[in-house]
Amino acid sequence: MTTPDFPAREYERRLELAQRAMREHRLDALLFTTEAELRYFTGFRTLFWQSPTRPWFLIVPAEGKPIAVIPTIGENLMATTWIDDIRTFSSPHADDDGLSLLTSALHGRARVGMPMGRETSLRMPLNDLTRLRNALPATEFCDATELVQALRMVKSELEIEVISKICAVASEAFENAPNLFREGQSLKDTFRAFRIELLQRGADDVPYLVGGAGPGGYGDVISPPSDKPLEAGDVLMLDTGATLNGYFCDFDRNFAIGHASSEARDAYARLHDATEAAIEAARPGMTCADLFKLMNDRTGGTGSNVGRLGHGLGMQLTEAPSLIDFDETILQEGMVITLEPSMDLPEGKMMVHEENIVIRDGPAQLLSRRAAPELPIL
Amino acid sequence: MTTPDFPAREYERRLELAQRAMREHRLDALLFTTEAELRYFTGFRTLFWQSPTRPWFLIVPAEGKPIAVIPTIGENLMATTWIDDIRTFSSPHADDDGLSLLTSALHGRARVGMPMGRETSLRMPLNDLTRLRNALPATEFCDATELVQALRMVKSELEIEVISKICAVASEAFENAPNLFREGQSLKDTFRAFRIELLQRGADDVPYLVGGAGPGGYGDVISPPSDKPLEAGDVLMLDTGATLNGYFCDFDRNFAIGHASSEARDAYARLHDATEAAIEAARPGMTCADLFKLMNDRTGGTGSNVGRLGHGLGMQLTEAPSLIDFDETILQEGMVITLEPSMDLPEGKMMVHEENIVIRDGPAQLLSRRAAPELPIL
Repeated sequence: MTTPDFPAREYERRLELAQRAMREHRLDALLFTTEAELRYFTGFRTLFWQSPTRPWFLIVPAEGKPIAVIPTIGENLMATTWIDDIRTFSSPHADDDGLSLLTSALHGRARVGMPMGRETSLRMPLNDLTRLRNALPATEFCDATELVQALRMVKSELEIEVISKICAVASEAFENAPNLFREGQSLKDTFRAFRIELLQRGADDVPYLVGGAGPGGYGDVISPPSDKPLEAGDVLMLDTGATLNGYFCDFDRNFAIGHASSEARDAYARLHDATEAAIEAARPGMTCADLFKLMNDRTGGTGSNVGRLGHGLGMQLTEAPSLIDFDETILQEGMVITLEPSMDLPEGKMMVHEENIVIRDGPAQLLSRRAAPELPIL
Repeated sequence: MTTPDFPAREYERRLELAQRAMREHRLDALLFTTEAELRYFTGFRTLFWQSPTRPWFLIVPAEGKPIAVIPTIGENLMATTWIDDIRTFSSPHADDDGLSLLTSALHGRARVGMPMGRETSLRMPLNDLTRLRNALPATEFCDATELVQALRMVKSELEIEVISKICAVASEAFENAPNLFREGQSLKDTFRAFRIELLQRGADDVPYLVGGAGPGGYGDVISPPSDKPLEAGDVLMLDTGATLNGYFCDFDRNFAIGHASSEARDAYARLHDATEAAIEAARPGMTCADLFKLMNDRTGGTGSNVGRLGHGLGMQLTEAPSLIDFDETILQEGMVITLEPSMDLPEGKMMVHEENIVIRDGPAQLLSRRAAPELPIL
């Protein structure tokens, strides 16, 4: 038997806040199809989402507990959560992958909110959504993106505790870099060693590990590793989203192999300084745009192809809000965010620096252990 | 610099077959938003899809090479692929996350196919799809699910080679079970040891690892691991989707801890027999429903909550087709599928057996190394 990640009161609180917001928006139900939202309201956690075959649905009504409309294969696991109303369908199905159950569960609800905006996706066949809408002509489907993001971006102490733990695991793993990475090692082997290190130190999984290495910097921050060996003078960057109980850390570290150019050291120092300023400044009441501008000014506004300088963090590697000039989201206590200033360097190179913090009533609290103030040389 | 996973001729062949099918369906373009489809036509491979923030688009026109409409952060990596026409937008964006670029790239195309059916999802905001449709009133958006699935379900020899390699890695890891799993070990530690084993033997990543353990069987096949220690008499099952160059294996193995009940041994033998019969029978020209019936008869048709007895395998853990009674897909040479018979056992327990094969002109070829004929006892 799997133990729920959190006690029922955590989910009761989420439901209470959701239903309060639903009353404000005059919504009769919320309909979800995606992993993070199903898990947020139920605690249902499985890697089975890797299989795209079966749709999963959750209805959060204006009153009462959520209703799970899910494939039979998930019934046992859902029954271990706090959810009572579990309606199952045989899936895959020739022509009714949950649609008739979903239709009857939503029947009579006038306004149904779904995530339709920024950062959202639809994890069910588009044809089935059309069929659902046609079967419920009296129901208005409304965009509930902001409602859901506003809930999810403020973390509970229980959530912060889990994120803090996985940040500690990744911090320890990065601090062991001198024993893991060396000149002549291929980038593939470097990644492999770091994945294993994270698992050995307690990570459940490493769904995200990207990085790069090159003389004085790297060309992008999303590539898988190549067979190229690390060479003296390379700057190596690893950026990891390891997980514990389905919650992510997300930060990177830079290392110089053998020696570092003064340009690389200077860029590192400037990014460290920008991050430091943001850690010191971040307070409830500031906006994300404020924090973006502060870091952008410190890095000289050279920008980079990343487009923002940080983001929310939690059940997903990146969540709302964004630290970018147009995001006027007001920082609140309990928000967990990344600070991720980046700079373009000459010859198509770039450098990125990243820390994870939680906004507190007063100074922010670091979740990742602060990177060294000078570019570490391995 | 990342090396492309396959030479350009692999992608040229995929495009040629897609465009042939598009002519049959009178489609002027295909529009994709999802990882597997973008990678299938371009070779663009990154774990950055873990971040839900930015939409990514690919247009496959009726003539000429695909057009990538992607966030700037992906430009460098996309430039390493065979794609020439790369149109980028700054993302996240206040109000235009690629939409105007997408609109102009699709303008004048009368019929645009998108995946809208079984097993598909939409990885862009629903609001933006509505805006796109409104901006292109003369364009008809059609369902291209079957067209795309028909292409992807038949693998090239290059794809089969990669899947074969990751199956060999997982087979070796499973064969090392006596050195990895033991009585008293928590299920969490069991999973951790197996993940590390897979990485050490050459897997790039282990996006999928589920399983269970209990006296005589397990309750479901999608749960994350608990802290419960393995006990004598438990049947332990691990089911893994490890990856190499972004291609999955997907099979499981069962082990008894200390000793096994005759019921568990019998169920295992029956599932092994059903799999054996399917391996021997699988030929081009049979349907998926035929193969389902064959296994279902051998297991006594007790079914289980899984709902099907196998599926396609490749860039995703599960792909079309399904081995289920209503799937009349005809098996073709080059299809890589899982054979996954399962049985309900008394007291809410179940057992699942799984192998990976490729359909050949003649007998099928095993990709996983065949499980032991009798339930192995650790």
